[in-house]
Amino acid sequence: MFLIDKYYRTIWIEDAPERDVCVIDQRDLPFSLNIRKLKNLEDAARAIENMTVRGAPQIGGTAVFAFYLALREMTPDISLKDYISAISDRLAVTRPTAVDLFYAIDLQKKALTALSVQSFDGFDALKENAVSLSLKIAQKWCDDSVKECEYIGLAGLDVIKKIFAKTGKPVNILTHCNAGWLACIDIGTATAPIYAAQKAGIPVHVWVDETRPRNQGSRLTAFELQEQKVPFTLITDNAGGHIMQHGLVDMVLVGTDRTTRKGDVANKIGTYLKALAAFDNQIPFYVGLPVSSLDANIGNGIIEIPIEERSSDEIHWVEGWNGEKIDKVRISPFDAPAANFGFDVTPARLITGGFITAKGICPANEKDIKSFFEI
Amino acid sequence: MFLIDKYYRTIWIEDAPERDVCVIDQRDLPFSLNIRKLKNLEDAARAIENMTVRGAPQIGGTAVFAFYLALREMTPDISLKDYISAISDRLAVTRPTAVDLFYAIDLQKKALTALSVQSFDGFDALKENAVSLSLKIAQKWCDDSVKECEYIGLAGLDVIKKIFAKTGKPVNILTHCNAGWLACIDIGTATAPIYAAQKAGIPVHVWVDETRPRNQGSRLTAFELQEQKVPFTLITDNAGGHIMQHGLVDMVLVGTDRTTRKGDVANKIGTYLKALAAFDNQIPFYVGLPVSSLDANIGNGIIEIPIEERSSDEIHWVEGWNGEKIDKVRISPFDAPAANFGFDVTPARLITGGFITAKGICPANEKDIKSFFEI
Repeated sequence: MFLIDKYYRTIWIEDAPERDVCVIDQRDLPFSLNIRKLKNLEDAARAIENMTVRGAPQIGGTAVFAFYLALREMTPDISLKDYISAISDRLAVTRPTAVDLFYAIDLQKKALTALSVQSFDGFDALKENAVSLSLKIAQKWCDDSVKECEYIGLAGLDVIKKIFAKTGKPVNILTHCNAGWLACIDIGTATAPIYAAQKAGIPVHVWVDETRPRNQGSRLTAFELQEQKVPFTLITDNAGGHIMQHGLVDMVLVGTDRTTRKGDVANKIGTYLKALAAFDNQIPFYVGLPVSSLDANIGNGIIEIPIEERSSDEIHWVEGWNGEKIDKVRISPFDAPAANFGFDVTPARLITGGFITAKGICPANEKDIKSFFEI
Repeated sequence: MFLIDKYYRTIWIEDAPERDVCVIDQRDLPFSLNIRKLKNLEDAARAIENMTVRGAPQIGGTAVFAFYLALREMTPDISLKDYISAISDRLAVTRPTAVDLFYAIDLQKKALTALSVQSFDGFDALKENAVSLSLKIAQKWCDDSVKECEYIGLAGLDVIKKIFAKTGKPVNILTHCNAGWLACIDIGTATAPIYAAQKAGIPVHVWVDETRPRNQGSRLTAFELQEQKVPFTLITDNAGGHIMQHGLVDMVLVGTDRTTRKGDVANKIGTYLKALAAFDNQIPFYVGLPVSSLDANIGNGIIEIPIEERSSDEIHWVEGWNGEKIDKVRISPFDAPAANFGFDVTPARLITGGFITAKGICPANEKDIKSFFEI
């Protein structure tokens, strides 16, 4: 997307001899736009862990590039196979919930392991080929992701158009957390239909949940909608039920960190509460679903998806701009115990609108998911 | 309740010749304990408006004392009746949602208007009697409120005992916002059963929602439970659904700012979402109900209860302790629009446990409410 007339993806290879990987540091937004360079595997793994990058597809994107960064530093004392295993193991422990990470790891692992059985003219040639292949895969992942988001946008545009045709008023969309271009490589999953509607001249208005504890809604979604000039209103996470009761929401549209073959969705903590409110008020609930977020191995999301628990400091301290710099304030008594669950699972029965995919709208049930995604 | 070995109500008459009204400034908690003096009507009205005091019963308590403060300044150029009307009008515009305020105003108005038709030996005698009567009424309101909270505690204790008898494990109670002693004169409504259980030796553990945007959960409920040594864990407002899905909550217990004769409950924004999650997971949902929060004139809460909209600054800026003083940080882009709804309405059908009242558990329906409260 464009920020002040310059086009940015959220991750790219720098146009300099070092050819390092660049990412937008999401921890500093919306207060400053800082680009961070990732030079090696550990830089990439830490960027995922400390949420320099975040959002399921963007975590996947960083992981595919991490193979490229790691392979640049491969030495002859380890086999390519063992080296790839070590890269995979390091990345796999960064964050547990989003499946895009594991999808990305598998993609690189399979392609690079195939490479290792071929014969090359010595270690240097093997290394050069591995680096080059991993970079191609990473760049293709990103291009494919952007294309997929475009198609998700078009599929979602149909939904928005239908609502607009019925009401003749700006379509009110509630979203939670950030499944925007910042969470992806570009365009976003949940935001793709919104940007597509804007492009098509369909008036939309977005209700943006602040998304405690890390405020991806107030800091990231509000930022990107404001930059793209999409009308929006920021609300607390508590307010979604009230506005749905009062007819102020036409559809709910969120992203997903992991979707099971039965259609259960792990997404940012609090998504389930919004789905319940949508259901109670007969408001369709949609999930923007890229194929990398689908986990065909899992059926029951509530039982089977591992839910990340993060530091209680994120609950006790709220980070923001103090007028001079990013600072934090304590909102609880010292020594108070706190628990910080990162995600919750919305059961398929509450995803009444369905999944907005690159192939169109897929109803949230095992049969349709299997046929849509050929799994 | 006791704070560091000293007993405090949340509002009282100072033990000094001025006989001003003292309140605990809830805006400074949990970081410092400051007592504010209210000297006149305007002090009291502003204390309600700026949330020096908050919580439905405590707003009512401040309003009854406001008549006493105002009457001390009555002058002979206005009739008692007109003066009382003016006091009532000023207080009535402070905050719109909690009905306790209007209940308190009516109580003083009726008693004092009766006084004005009697004859006194001149203005000074009338004034002296009016001041003295209003003070008596205010003090009785407070004593009655404390007694009512005690009985709510006993009624709720039965509920907690039954759960404990069944599970044999600490009873997990989720609460939202602060309906504790800080919201009342003492003991609290939603917290009364918790304190009663603690006294009776029944183990309890409380899940405390932080309650954005003003964080009454993380700042006030966490503070008072910590001071009273009740085990608790602070969570985000988003997390309640997840912990209910995973069997970590035995009951939900909240306060109310206004309850209709049909059993709909206006309470802090976000309560409705927790009620939906409790319903979806077959967890009983209880509301601690003092008689002053009942509004028999209203049937459908969603349509009829006015919902306060507060400044969007409360959304954009989060207040807390920066290490030296109470400060605030911005959590959203500058110029972002925001809407700040203070309350939502939970329909009676979701209040599956019922109302915990001084007379016992009242089911959330018109027939039972009418017979319980003789309306």
